[in-house]
Amino acid sequence: MKQAVINPFALALDFTSGKLEPATTHITRHLSHMRNMYIDSAAEQAVLTREDPLIYEVYQYDVPNENGQLISCTTILYPGRIGDEYYMTKGHYHEKADTGEIYLGLRGNGKLLMQVGDQFSALDMGPGTVAYVPPYWAHRTVNTGDEPFIFFAVYPADAGHNYGTIEQEGFQQIILEKQGNPVIVPSPRWKNA
Amino acid sequence: MKQAVINPFALALDFTSGKLEPATTHITRHLSHMRNMYIDSAAEQAVLTREDPLIYEVYQYDVPNENGQLISCTTILYPGRIGDEYYMTKGHYHEKADTGEIYLGLRGNGKLLMQVGDQFSALDMGPGTVAYVPPYWAHRTVNTGDEPFIFFAVYPADAGHNYGTIEQEGFQQIILEKQGNPVIVPSPRWKNA
Repeated sequence: MKQAVINPFALALDFTSGKLEPATTHITRHLSHMRNMYIDSAAEQAVLTREDPLIYEVYQYDVPNENGQLISCTTILYPGRIGDEYYMTKGHYHEKADTGEIYLGLRGNGKLLMQVGDQFSALDMGPGTVAYVPPYWAHRTVNTGDEPFIFFAVYPADAGHNYGTIEQEGFQQIILEKQGNPVIVPSPRWKNA
Repeated sequence: MKQAVINPFALALDFTSGKLEPATTHITRHLSHMRNMYIDSAAEQAVLTREDPLIYEVYQYDVPNENGQLISCTTILYPGRIGDEYYMTKGHYHEKADTGEIYLGLRGNGKLLMQVGDQFSALDMGPGTVAYVPPYWAHRTVNTGDEPFIFFAVYPADAGHNYGTIEQEGFQQIILEKQGNPVIVPSPRWKNA
């Protein structure tokens, strides 16, 4: 396969802020961009009447979306809850499903939720955690701490993102705060619930 | 393409020691494993009569070597010199040449040397440096500081390693200590020298 010619480059990642500079893509996801993804619709509505909080940001450096190239990005997932449910990312499958992803926790604490078919996995992440999202597994992160949960990720440049399936089906399990601690409970919205 | 079934997993990376636990592969490269790669053969021989220093270590977690899977590893490159030349890794091309690699500096300082054809690149790396090794480019790291130079790397699991070309041809430029500072000079051994 003939690929685009790319020259070497370096970026600066700030482990405290999560900022990657320069970045070619900067995504900011506010609550209004995630409608109906949190379980407590009344709480979501109540928050949105007051404000539209920033839930997470992604800084990414894009390269040609060719097999063999790799994309790096950082995610800054802020602390907070909608009702009892901790702030989380939308979550997605890769469009090219047979591609994996590697995460490295830099700051804060959270959970990495993954699922494929009826299988589900929740891994704890903190600074220094290297987590593997195997090919085919959908992935979402949840901030269960009280500071920004920041992680670095690398994935194949031809992986693509399929957000639609999770928007429709959600995740099998959700993370709620109960008496100050995160608990994993089955989602009442999951298709088999 | 049908791939092996892999379940999610998490590893612990210590940013200070560079250790990745668990690891499936642990490489320790001593000077005797790199004969004739340093430019000063007499200095190499003199060191080897006294000791066989550990130049670098790699901790890696392997997954099936299939397209779409990703391997993560850490490299701990110790400080030191053979003659005037700073400790370095062997360096390699990927066997499947059209695959890239992403580095993240965690501790210490060094240079990432890359080359393809007659092109050459040297990037400075320190904590928080994200460096891209584009497809086709050979890559070697050099510790120009006085503490371990530690970095995290991710590359496609089907990339493979071609060490032979660098063992025969070397790199176009080498990094020497001159009056306390690293300088980049053309290698007298490079084929066009």
